[in-house]
Amino acid sequence: MKIIVLKFGGTSVGSVDRIKNVSNIIISYIKKKYRVIVATSAMSGVTNELVKKSEQISSNFTPEEYDVLVSTGEQISCSLIAGRLNHLGYKSRSWLGWQVPILTTGNYSSSRIKNIYKKDIVKYLKLGGIPIIAGFQGINFQNRITTIGRGGTDSSAIMLARFFKAEKCIIYTDVDGVYTTDPNKIKKAKKIKIISYEEMLEMSSLGAKVMQPHSIQDARLNRIDIEVRSSFKKIKGTTITKRKNIINNKIIRGVSFTNNDAKITLIGVKDKPGVAASIFEPLYKNSINVDMVVQNISSNGKETDLTFTIKSDDLIKTEKLIKKNKKIIFKKIIVDNKVSKVSIIGVGMITTPGVTFRMFNALAKKNINIIVISTSEIKISVLVNRKDLNKAISVLHKEFNLEN
Amino acid sequence: MKIIVLKFGGTSVGSVDRIKNVSNIIISYIKKKYRVIVATSAMSGVTNELVKKSEQISSNFTPEEYDVLVSTGEQISCSLIAGRLNHLGYKSRSWLGWQVPILTTGNYSSSRIKNIYKKDIVKYLKLGGIPIIAGFQGINFQNRITTIGRGGTDSSAIMLARFFKAEKCIIYTDVDGVYTTDPNKIKKAKKIKIISYEEMLEMSSLGAKVMQPHSIQDARLNRIDIEVRSSFKKIKGTTITKRKNIINNKIIRGVSFTNNDAKITLIGVKDKPGVAASIFEPLYKNSINVDMVVQNISSNGKETDLTFTIKSDDLIKTEKLIKKNKKIIFKKIIVDNKVSKVSIIGVGMITTPGVTFRMFNALAKKNINIIVISTSEIKISVLVNRKDLNKAISVLHKEFNLEN
Repeated sequence: MKIIVLKFGGTSVGSVDRIKNVSNIIISYIKKKYRVIVATSAMSGVTNELVKKSEQISSNFTPEEYDVLVSTGEQISCSLIAGRLNHLGYKSRSWLGWQVPILTTGNYSSSRIKNIYKKDIVKYLKLGGIPIIAGFQGINFQNRITTIGRGGTDSSAIMLARFFKAEKCIIYTDVDGVYTTDPNKIKKAKKIKIISYEEMLEMSSLGAKVMQPHSIQDARLNRIDIEVRSSFKKIKGTTITKRKNIINNKIIRGVSFTNNDAKITLIGVKDKPGVAASIFEPLYKNSINVDMVVQNISSNGKETDLTFTIKSDDLIKTEKLIKKNKKIIFKKIIVDNKVSKVSIIGVGMITTPGVTFRMFNALAKKNINIIVISTSEIKISVLVNRKDLNKAISVLHKEFNLEN
Repeated sequence: MKIIVLKFGGTSVGSVDRIKNVSNIIISYIKKKYRVIVATSAMSGVTNELVKKSEQISSNFTPEEYDVLVSTGEQISCSLIAGRLNHLGYKSRSWLGWQVPILTTGNYSSSRIKNIYKKDIVKYLKLGGIPIIAGFQGINFQNRITTIGRGGTDSSAIMLARFFKAEKCIIYTDVDGVYTTDPNKIKKAKKIKIISYEEMLEMSSLGAKVMQPHSIQDARLNRIDIEVRSSFKKIKGTTITKRKNIINNKIIRGVSFTNNDAKITLIGVKDKPGVAASIFEPLYKNSINVDMVVQNISSNGKETDLTFTIKSDDLIKTEKLIKKNKKIIFKKIIVDNKVSKVSIIGVGMITTPGVTFRMFNALAKKNINIIVISTSEIKISVLVNRKDLNKAISVLHKEFNLEN
């Protein structure tokens, strides 16, 4: 069987008309002789309404009941899609998490899929049926409804593709793919036709919010090809796949950025073992995510300057935590709430020397000051003043030939 | 264990505030040392919204998927009630039809409860938990969600009371009980404290829309005491019970009526065997409900006059069906769309002679013409001109001392 998994996000099934549209998309794959498995999100807005109700009932709503509550969203959309396909003369039915069953482990509201029992669905596929699976939900060993944390229905779709050995998993959403950078900022941004899991992971965690990093990681671990595309336009999307499937590799795949960073510099910190830990431990305990960290080597061996970045929203809290921390001694604290991070991403940089130089040189030519630098195998990030952000994205996008 | 079943209707759980109110009602029974099992309807409006969506998807929406769709309504309300009880410090959890499980038979959308598996819930009750059961839903042998037809959550509650051998089943709704007649029409209408199943059946099928006849019948067959009361007011409702539990029996319990009848008279029908059947068969096949039927004996033995009543809405269709029916020959058809039925109901009439006389006499004194009469063991109904309806209700309500 040539199996394909189609996932539809909340906006794709956001109204009766869109559910009709989605049903036509499903049929187009049936006509191409695919066996189709559908995973669907809740109609957009429905989950938020339910969450609002739970918050009005209790500021600390029971997680077990929360999952019973919010899982109705996907139950509604999967029955409507199946009903529409029936209306059009196709054999189709809905499957809820407990009916498949999709077994999950972990806590309520943040469960992970452990196993998908295939038997009934395989039988149904062989009979020519189209199973519509409620995404985002499963059951646990206690026979209670669970919902899947990070990734939600994307995770459901990727795990379905894995268990059913699907040829491909297509994520239908409200954007038509992944771009070399934000098309709202840079008009010359181009859609990326093909991208590796690793590059996509860096792109998504840095702000290209097409898919949750967790789901991309699931796909990577299971070697499942994903296509991200729009359910509103009939155009090809972006394929996310193994590195070796990408033939015509560009050095740099895209330029990503963040808009809401803040920088803290501690001047004259006593340089002794454990000082960094004593600074970052209280931040970690308060769920404050530290991103870039730079420590200058001190000239006298006794003092050092430490710079790190956090999200702007966490700035006030972080400053307080540091000031009341008796364990660290420093001369001065400097905060800057007007910085942004710009990154270039591409597996090509591993085998191509001089990428760092080209990046710094291009920025220097435009008088853009680099505040902090951090690098990984396939990514170089620099912190710049926020006023320079657009200029930085633009010059790097051009420098690495992403406009063509 | 002293078990009580509480059922909450759609308006009783119609908002977050009402769910909070309902949770307090539940707790009041816990404080009285009851083990409480709750059956809940969907929040009012929710089911209609879902039905509307299904109609927009298809004018002929698949029943299987319809049940998956509409059963989300009760799933939402039962999780919110359990969540609220948890918030207030009580041990509570939701149970969906498939989790109990509540096994049903029959067609989708009109299933009937066949069995309720008690084990898990009994265990939970013994631990002091409050199970909140989603009403109106079950599963069938195919492991698919079904919904219960006539009676809905009332039926769920009564069957729960039966299987758990509950002391009583309390139906919380938006009316505060059953009245001797419609209080909107007759100001002196009084709430009935206690009524037999049989009387309630006649009352409800004649227009007192407090409970579905089907659910009352379920309660009667299983000898379950029901109290119907308001979730908005802290006052006693109406208890529906076995005849022998009613000590101070009035002859007549109430006056009910219909507002939308029509009468058809066929003059000069050929009087031969099978003629009535040939008239009513096509009506039955078109789901037209015939209520009262009177046939005058013909003087010559060859012709007869036949009168029957139907709902006003069915009049045009019925007239057409009769006129195009070649099997019946008649001289003339007379229709009257302005008639109403008034009934007096009471088990007391079985043992009390003269009730019929008192009824006819009271109506005659007020110059109210009786068009058709029909009687059962505990009910006498008369058809009157609609303009006389209010006068008729009023005089009968007074005649049988229902004002006191």
